[in-house]
Amino acid sequence: MKFFSMGLVRNGEFHLYLPPKGAGPFLKDNPNYQRPAKTLILLHGFNGDCDDWMQHTPVSEWSMKYNLAIAMPTGGVSFFLDREATGHKYATFVGVDLIRFLRETYGLAMNREDTFIGGNSMGGFGAMHAALMFPETFGACMGLSSAAIAKQLPAMKENFQPNRMANLEYYVEQFGDLEKAPESDINAEWQFNQNKEKGIENPRIFMACGTEDFGIANNRDLAKFFKDAGADFEFYEAPGIHNWSFWIPAAEKGIEFLLK
Amino acid sequence: MKFFSMGLVRNGEFHLYLPPKGAGPFLKDNPNYQRPAKTLILLHGFNGDCDDWMQHTPVSEWSMKYNLAIAMPTGGVSFFLDREATGHKYATFVGVDLIRFLRETYGLAMNREDTFIGGNSMGGFGAMHAALMFPETFGACMGLSSAAIAKQLPAMKENFQPNRMANLEYYVEQFGDLEKAPESDINAEWQFNQNKEKGIENPRIFMACGTEDFGIANNRDLAKFFKDAGADFEFYEAPGIHNWSFWIPAAEKGIEFLLK
Amino acid sequence: MKFFSMGLVRNGEFHLYLPPKGAGPFLKDNPNYQRPAKTLILLHGFNGDCDDWMQHTPVSEWSMKYNLAIAMPTGGVSFFLDREATGHKYATFVGVDLIRFLRETYGLAMNREDTFIGGNSMGGFGAMHAALMFPETFGACMGLSSAAIAKQLPAMKENFQPNRMANLEYYVEQFGDLEKAPESDINAEWQFNQNKEKGIENPRIFMACGTEDFGIANNRDLAKFFKDAGADFEFYEAPGIHNWSFWIPAAEKGIEFLLK
Amino acid sequence: MKFFSMGLVRNGEFHLYLPPKGAGPFLKDNPNYQRPAKTLILLHGFNGDCDDWMQHTPVSEWSMKYNLAIAMPTGGVSFFLDREATGHKYATFVGVDLIRFLRETYGLAMNREDTFIGGNSMGGFGAMHAALMFPETFGACMGLSSAAIAKQLPAMKENFQPNRMANLEYYVEQFGDLEKAPESDINAEWQFNQNKEKGIENPRIFMACGTEDFGIANNRDLAKFFKDAGADFEFYEAPGIHNWSFWIPAAEKGIEFLLK
Repeated sequence: MKFFSMGLVRNGEFHLYLPPKGAGPFLKDNPNYQRPAKTLILLHGFNGDCDDWMQHTPVSEWSMKYNLAIAMPTGGVSFFLDREATGHKYATFVGVDLIRFLRETYGLAMNREDTFIGGNSMGGFGAMHAALMFPETFGACMGLSSAAIAKQLPAMKENFQPNRMANLEYYVEQFGDLEKAPESDINAEWQFNQNKEKGIENPRIFMACGTEDFGIANNRDLAKFFKDAGADFEFYEAPGIHNWSFWIPAAEKGIEFLLK
Repeated sequence: MKFFSMGLVRNGEFHLYLPPKGAGPFLKDNPNYQRPAKTLILLHGFNGDCDDWMQHTPVSEWSMKYNLAIAMPTGGVSFFLDREATGHKYATFVGVDLIRFLRETYGLAMNREDTFIGGNSMGGFGAMHAALMFPETFGACMGLSSAAIAKQLPAMKENFQPNRMANLEYYVEQFGDLEKAPESDINAEWQFNQNKEKGIENPRIFMACGTEDFGIANNRDLAKFFKDAGADFEFYEAPGIHNWSFWIPAAEKGIEFLLK
Repeated sequence: MKFFSMGLVRNGEFHLYLPPKGAGPFLKDNPNYQRPAKTLILLHGFNGDCDDWMQHTPVSEWSMKYNLAIAMPTGGVSFFLDREATGHKYATFVGVDLIRFLRETYGLAMNREDTFIGGNSMGGFGAMHAALMFPETFGACMGLSSAAIAKQLPAMKENFQPNRMANLEYYVEQFGDLEKAPESDINAEWQFNQNKEKGIENPRIFMACGTEDFGIANNRDLAKFFKDAGADFEFYEAPGIHNWSFWIPAAEKGIEFLLK
Repeated sequence: MKFFSMGLVRNGEFHLYLPPKGAGPFLKDNPNYQRPAKTLILLHGFNGDCDDWMQHTPVSEWSMKYNLAIAMPTGGVSFFLDREATGHKYATFVGVDLIRFLRETYGLAMNREDTFIGGNSMGGFGAMHAALMFPETFGACMGLSSAAIAKQLPAMKENFQPNRMANLEYYVEQFGDLEKAPESDINAEWQFNQNKEKGIENPRIFMACGTEDFGIANNRDLAKFFKDAGADFEFYEAPGIHNWSFWIPAAEKGIEFLLK
C-alpha cells in the first residue's frame, strides 16, 4: 500500500493487516474483541524493508489474535531519522504521516494509549526514537535487539573500522556530526530526559535482547538507564542471537506489554 | 518485484512487463517478433516511483507492440546518482544491479545494442546519466523533459530560492559540492566528452521537450551540445508542458529511435 | 489489496485509488472537492483482472480530478454473476462484500446516490447486472461495450460455434439453463422490469458502444429498451471498436453522467 | 507476479522466491549450492490464496537454505482440478502453464527430478493430483493433511450435511458426478494405478498428517495404499491438528524427502 508522505515528498510504502471488524464465531471468546482495534507500527532492520515482518513472523496471526492493526513501512537505510534534506524525513514519515494516514483513511486508534510502535535492530532504534520524539502520539514502544549505538558514534570518526556493513560517509549522512550524537535526539536517553524536563509524559518502553546478541552490552546499558530513570519499562533477556528465532517470541512478549 | 541490490544494500523494487515469448496469432505480422525481445528501463520523475509509467502511460501495450521487456524501478529522490554513502548508489542500482538481475534471472538482452534506458524529468536526467556512465551497457537512451540542471547548480548555493520543491541541503546531499557540478559526472556534457576522450563509444541519445515546458531552455542548450559534438542524436520538440500528455507521444517517438 | 469475501469464501482482490482528503493548493478551484468523495467500482472484461483499468486508462488521474474513490476488483471469468455453488458469488462479492468493506474500512460514500459501478465488455454486463440487482446500493451504473448477450444464450445450446472464446460447458456453468436466460436476472431488461414492478427505484444507466464494435447491435437493442422503458438513461455511440481507445473517452463521458 | 495462463484464459497469480544465484560468503559451506536451484510449487488450502505459505511459514528462509525456487500460486476453491468449462483448468494452470512459465522465463529446473509440488489441505490434494497427472513433470510431491476425500464423495450426494464449509452444488461443480469420483482422476489411488498400468513412472510421494487432524483416518488409509502399492513413499505422523503449527515442521521434513 502506498500514500503520499510529505516527509518523504513521495509515496511511502507499507503493508497493513487489519483485524476483523467483529469477533465472529471463532473470536467470540477473545477478550481483545471487547475493545476497538489498536494500532502497531513495526519497523524493519538494516538491509530490510516492509516485507520483513510479514515474511519472517506470524504477523497476520498476531493481528487477529490481539485485535491489532499492524502497519509495516519501508524505511530504507535511514535509521528512521529525520535529516535536514528534503525527502529524508523518515521519523516524520512513520510518526506523523503514516499515523495520520491510518487514522484518516481507516479510522484507526485516535489516541496515544492505543497507538504503538516497535521494531527490530535498526527498527528497534527507530521505534524508540519515534515514540520518544512523538510521545503525544505513541503510548508505548518496543525495541528488539535495538541498534542502541548513539554513544559509540563519536569514537567512529577517528577510528572507523573498514569491512563493516557501512562506510563512514553513511554514518555521517544519517547521524550528522558524530561527536554530537550522544547529546542529540539520536540518543534515546537524551530524548527521554528532554521530555521529562519539559513535563511531557514519556511512552512506556519494552526492550528485549538475546544474551548472545552482539548488541547485548549496549542494550543492557540503555535498559539500566530507563530503569534508573523511572520509566514505565520492561527488559526481556533470553538466550539468543540477532535473528528472527529470538525476535518472534520476544515480539509476542512485547505486544503483551504494549497491550497492558 | 524486488531483488537485493548491492548498490542500495537492500531490496530494489521495480515493475516489469515481459512481452509474449512467441508472436502468437495476433502478433504474427509484427516484425518486432522476428528478433528477440529488447530491454528498456524507464525511470520516474521527482515525487514519483515505479508506479508512474505504469499508471500514466500504456506501457503494457508498448511492451507487446515493440517486443520490449520494460522495467520500471523506484529511485526515490536520488536523481539516480551514486553518492559516497553506503546504500545510496542509485546509478549502480539501475545501471549495474538491475541490468544484471534482468539478464541473470530472465535471460534478457545481453548486449548494449539491445539494452536501453529512458525517463522523464528527474528520470530523464537519470537515464542519460546512467547511459553515459555505463556506455558498455546501454546502446541508447531517451531523456524526456530532462532535468538538465547541472549548469544551474553552482549559482544555487549563493542564491537559493525558498519555496522551491526542495531545500538547499537536499541539493548538496544529492549533488555534492554544487560549484563543481558542471565539471563532474552530474553534467551529461562532461560525461559525453570524457567517454569521447577515452575512446569509449557513447550511447545514441534521444531528447524531447515541450515548447512550453519550464525546462525548454536547458533542454535546447543540451541538445545543441549533443548536435555540435557529433552524437548519434535526435531532439523532438512539440507544443506541450511538463506532463504526461506530452510524455506519452514523445516516449513512443523515443522508443522508435531506440529500436532503429 | 485483499479482504475476506463471504461471497467468494476466500480473499477478494482489488486495486483502490483514493482521492486526496482535502483539495490542497492544486485542487482548490476544483468543484468536486466541495463535496465528499464518491465511490466508483470498475469491472474488467473477459480474460482480464484488477490490473486492466489501472494499466490501460488514466484511472489515477480520474480519481483525483473527480474526487472519486475507484475500486477495481478481480472477477475471473465469472461475468460477475452469483452461482449456486459456494465460492462463486461474484455479484455478491462486488455488490455487497466489496461495498461493505469500502464503507466499513474507509468510511466511503454510504448512500446509493454516491455509489456507482461501471465496466467494459464482460464488466459492462457485470456492472449493469450488479446495479440492477442491488438498486438500493448503486445509484447509477455505466456499461461500456457491454456483453449484452442474454437473448443470444438460448440459441447457443443447439448451435454452438466452435473456435469461440469459450466452450459450451463454460456458458452453462456461468449462466445455468441457457434457454431460461432471457427470463432471468441474466437479462438486464428482466431485472429492470422486475424492479419496476416491485416499485423499486432503478439505478440511472449510462451505456456506450463503438459503431464498429461486434456488439453494437446488442447494445443498440438494449439501449432502445431502456429508452422505451423510461429509464434515466444515456447512450453514447461514436466510431470505434472493442478496445481501450474507445473505452477511455467513453468512460470519461460515463463518469460525468454518473456524477450529474 | 502474474502471467497469462491458457488453462485459466486469464492471468494466473503466484508469489515466487528465487534463491541467490551464487552461494556467496554466508552460504559457501551449504552443500545445496553445489548444485543448481530446484523448483517447488506450494499450493494453499480452501479459503486461502498465494499469500498463505508466505504469511504463515518461513518460506523465504527455506528458499535460501535449500537453494529452492518456491512458487506459490492462487487456485481459488478449485481443488486444483481441471473442469470441462473454459477457464477452470487449475491442474493445467499449476502443472503445465506455471511450470512452462517458470522454465521459459527464469530458466528454472528443466527435468522432473528437480521439479516438485506440495501443499496443505486442499493444496495437499491438489499437489498429489497434479504430480500423478503430470508424472513426466514432477519427480516428487508432498501432501500435508491432504483433503483425501475422493472415497467420501459418493455418499455425499444422498446424505449431504448442511452447515459444512460448502454446499452440494459446490462439490458437484468441482468434482462432477460424485458417484464416479473414486474411479476417476479425483482419486489419487486410481491415478497411481493408471500410471503403473501404462508403465509410467510415478512420482515419489511424501504425506504427513497430525494425529488429531480431522482427516487422519483418510490420510492413513491413503498412506496404506501407497505403501502397499510399492510407491517410493514416506508418511509422517506427529501430534497436531489441521494448522500451521503442524504444517511448518512437516513441510521441512517433506522438503528433505523431496530433495533426497
